[in-house]
Amino acid sequence: VNGAQALVATATQAGLSVCFANPGTTEMPLVEALDAEPAVRPVLGLFEGVVTGAADGYARMAERPAMTLLHLGPGFANGIANLHNARRAGSPVVNVVGDHTTWHRPADAPLTSDIASLARPVSHWLRENRTAGDLPGDVADAVAEACSDGGRIATLVVPADCQQDEAGAPVRPRSPRARTAVPAETVRAAAEALRGGGPGVLLLGASGLSADGLRAAGRVAAASGCRLLCGKFPARIERGGDLPAVERLGYFPEQAAKSLSGAAALVLAGERSPVTFFGYPGTPSSEVPDGVAEHRLAGPTDDVVAALEELADALGAPPAAPAAPPARPGPASGPLTPATAGQVLAALQPEGAVVVDEALTTSAPYWPASAGAPRHSVLTITGGAIGQGLPNAVGAAVACPDRPVIAYQADGSGLYTAQALWTMARESLDVTVLVCANRSYRILRAELQRSGATPGRASQTLTSLSDPAVDWVALAAAYGVPARQVTTAEEMADALRTGLTEPGPHLVELLL
Amino acid sequence: VNGAQALVATATQAGLSVCFANPGTTEMPLVEALDAEPAVRPVLGLFEGVVTGAADGYARMAERPAMTLLHLGPGFANGIANLHNARRAGSPVVNVVGDHTTWHRPADAPLTSDIASLARPVSHWLRENRTAGDLPGDVADAVAEACSDGGRIATLVVPADCQQDEAGAPVRPRSPRARTAVPAETVRAAAEALRGGGPGVLLLGASGLSADGLRAAGRVAAASGCRLLCGKFPARIERGGDLPAVERLGYFPEQAAKSLSGAAALVLAGERSPVTFFGYPGTPSSEVPDGVAEHRLAGPTDDVVAALEELADALGAPPAAPAAPPARPGPASGPLTPATAGQVLAALQPEGAVVVDEALTTSAPYWPASAGAPRHSVLTITGGAIGQGLPNAVGAAVACPDRPVIAYQADGSGLYTAQALWTMARESLDVTVLVCANRSYRILRAELQRSGATPGRASQTLTSLSDPAVDWVALAAAYGVPARQVTTAEEMADALRTGLTEPGPHLVELLL
Repeated sequence: VNGAQALVATATQAGLSVCFANPGTTEMPLVEALDAEPAVRPVLGLFEGVVTGAADGYARMAERPAMTLLHLGPGFANGIANLHNARRAGSPVVNVVGDHTTWHRPADAPLTSDIASLARPVSHWLRENRTAGDLPGDVADAVAEACSDGGRIATLVVPADCQQDEAGAPVRPRSPRARTAVPAETVRAAAEALRGGGPGVLLLGASGLSADGLRAAGRVAAASGCRLLCGKFPARIERGGDLPAVERLGYFPEQAAKSLSGAAALVLAGERSPVTFFGYPGTPSSEVPDGVAEHRLAGPTDDVVAALEELADALGAPPAAPAAPPARPGPASGPLTPATAGQVLAALQPEGAVVVDEALTTSAPYWPASAGAPRHSVLTITGGAIGQGLPNAVGAAVACPDRPVIAYQADGSGLYTAQALWTMARESLDVTVLVCANRSYRILRAELQRSGATPGRASQTLTSLSDPAVDWVALAAAYGVPARQVTTAEEMADALRTGLTEPGPHLVELLL
Repeated sequence: VNGAQALVATATQAGLSVCFANPGTTEMPLVEALDAEPAVRPVLGLFEGVVTGAADGYARMAERPAMTLLHLGPGFANGIANLHNARRAGSPVVNVVGDHTTWHRPADAPLTSDIASLARPVSHWLRENRTAGDLPGDVADAVAEACSDGGRIATLVVPADCQQDEAGAPVRPRSPRARTAVPAETVRAAAEALRGGGPGVLLLGASGLSADGLRAAGRVAAASGCRLLCGKFPARIERGGDLPAVERLGYFPEQAAKSLSGAAALVLAGERSPVTFFGYPGTPSSEVPDGVAEHRLAGPTDDVVAALEELADALGAPPAAPAAPPARPGPASGPLTPATAGQVLAALQPEGAVVVDEALTTSAPYWPASAGAPRHSVLTITGGAIGQGLPNAVGAAVACPDRPVIAYQADGSGLYTAQALWTMARESLDVTVLVCANRSYRILRAELQRSGATPGRASQTLTSLSDPAVDWVALAAAYGVPARQVTTAEEMADALRTGLTEPGPHLVELLL
């Protein structure tokens, strides 16, 4: 048993069954070890941003880690942006990064670099393996760390010779740290705050947005009259059907202020205290309005569901009752706008859909429109590092082969990691990609407008995606995905129905 | 004058005239400052790997830095792989990375990360700007550092409020450190080594591969009988016409050993002592054969040209004589292979061409075939981080609008940063892209074969780019570049001629 074989066997015993990969020479022993392990599905990404974003999407849906296999410092670097999103999402991910053979490092060969310095900012746990003998234990630690506290990024750097050398037997799975239980006095304090008279807001995040968390939150709302909110960019939220509806905190400071205005008490349940996305002159970082009493019931790594149930009990709430879903819109008609596109999607998305929302400026109207849709999951861009959507959709589809995946995708962000389309085609994933083609970095134009600037040549050049416009139908075809461009809500509905009905991936370019 | 305006004015006074960019909200004040500065050309990349790779290609050809404008940690991270290549190339690059407003950092907003930890491995010089008042001086330092020692990566992190706050006047350019002069006794020792009897090898790199360096090296060869070699992946080498021909060190250890076999003395002139690209079991890192006496005339940051001229003088060499160029092949015929494709390119590349070679396994036969081509420059993948070719070609074309640029491009590597095609179209760059479509990570298959493995499912899956094959003609069309697929040498010649004749970018997919 060489190190690579022991690594794969240890990871397999710990429950890993998918390896998203773009390996190079220093990872070839691991690729050969995967050849001999049918329990692990190897999935190739044409770029490491696809690999890590897929691992993130997989983790959010499967609630267990996939392995990534990355090539040295530059390969890891290409995956950093989506690991940044995964870290903010609290996704469990096990990164395996090949490194030069230990005795070759002093030669400072062309691909040598400081992998640890690159990995540290996006890794909760980082270890540089030193010998083949240590490798099985290092892998068991990596998987346990990835699964701890609800989900963490664990990065293990493995030199090529440690993959090749004789290693000991695989190591049994080690126990991850469970989510932290919330003390009873913290629950009591939150209950008092919500009972305290004024209107309350329960701000939900992490496992507080699971079905169980939401049902418990619904009980809290029924007993206390508080409103239910989630953060700007939840990692995963269950929505629709008979789940209680949740408002989403607005993106810009004045929108967030509106979401929180009038509240007397703000109780955090799995979400951090809200802050502005960027620092705006004259606007404080904290979005908690003056005079609002803030109470932290549970942080993202705590056992949010149990805390919410205890809170509901403390408030004397009756058992959860199914919520009456808001009305579901019918499909829209006429020209495509953010409103009509969102309405069409909300009207047609099937039961059990996984909606990966990186539509940014286009997606705002979709959120309220889809509150009455059948049960579904939504994944969003937790860390603000664009290029998350298409790779997340790959991972979600691998994790949930029986659920339709819909990628609601901004064009500028989609172009960061469009190579994900190829993996969708190769793996025959049931993903329908809806590209919102406004042909600009619209969010930056909004920011420029807010700052009062008159756009000149550089502003125009650096925020426009036209001249030439990207042809998404051709781009999809290049990667083996059938595609169609639409300009009206009716055409969008037709194309979306086709995408949802036919197997394999489809892309629809929405000309907005 | 706010910080952003002072930054742009200081950089402009120091000679920067191009800004490759993909900015976000934290860089908007800089974008507004660029609006008011017509001396700086803003060039948008749809992904930061394009931005940094273009800055590298620009620097190699212009021999001065461009500015990059990158958005926070994730934006910088996306540019790391090509900065890794730029660092290995010794290219001058000035990275400007926006950061959150200083007082917003403690809020740990979603896009917050440790930029310095990400930047350090690819930056020779790194500074985190603290106040608007410091900013002009910080920029002057950054440009001077980038231009020092022949070329360095200088990274300046600039918080948004420091861009917005009132700053002092722009700062005059500061003096970079010149390349280090080589001591006379080092030159004498090298001369003695080459005079010493046995066959000598002069291994050239950095400015030793400029026209002046090569002419001096030619004198050394004429006087001493030594052979001229360059490293595996030179940053830039001048070739063809009446320049002395230079052999390229082989990629695999046994090829490199063949290149160096029989030498009694090895003199390094701008190139580091040769090491294997990866660490192979049983093969030492150093490629210098036993018994070869190694002499370091000049390192990459030394004044290699002067050292070579002094070496030639010390050997009593007559003035440089134009070399008789080897015969130039005619265009090949028949099916496309690495040999026929390389022959067609060598036969047709026009005087003054800039050939960006990231064709990897396909390009080997091109090298000897093109020795007799008219004068041209070749840029290669210095750091082994794939995805260098197309972005380098963008930068080279911006630096040299009057020279035809030819990107000789492997397909797997090209898919890392194919978004560069869009920038070629937008900026109407005269680039002809020749994609060598073997539809596999061929180099990895070669490595697997060398290791004696029988490829199984994972090996097949993770090294194959077919199923589905990427349609490069559609990919180019998506990004606004006219394209054609060819399967014979005659068709390739025809398509290459069209690409070289018509203005703007063209792509030819070579089905190998």
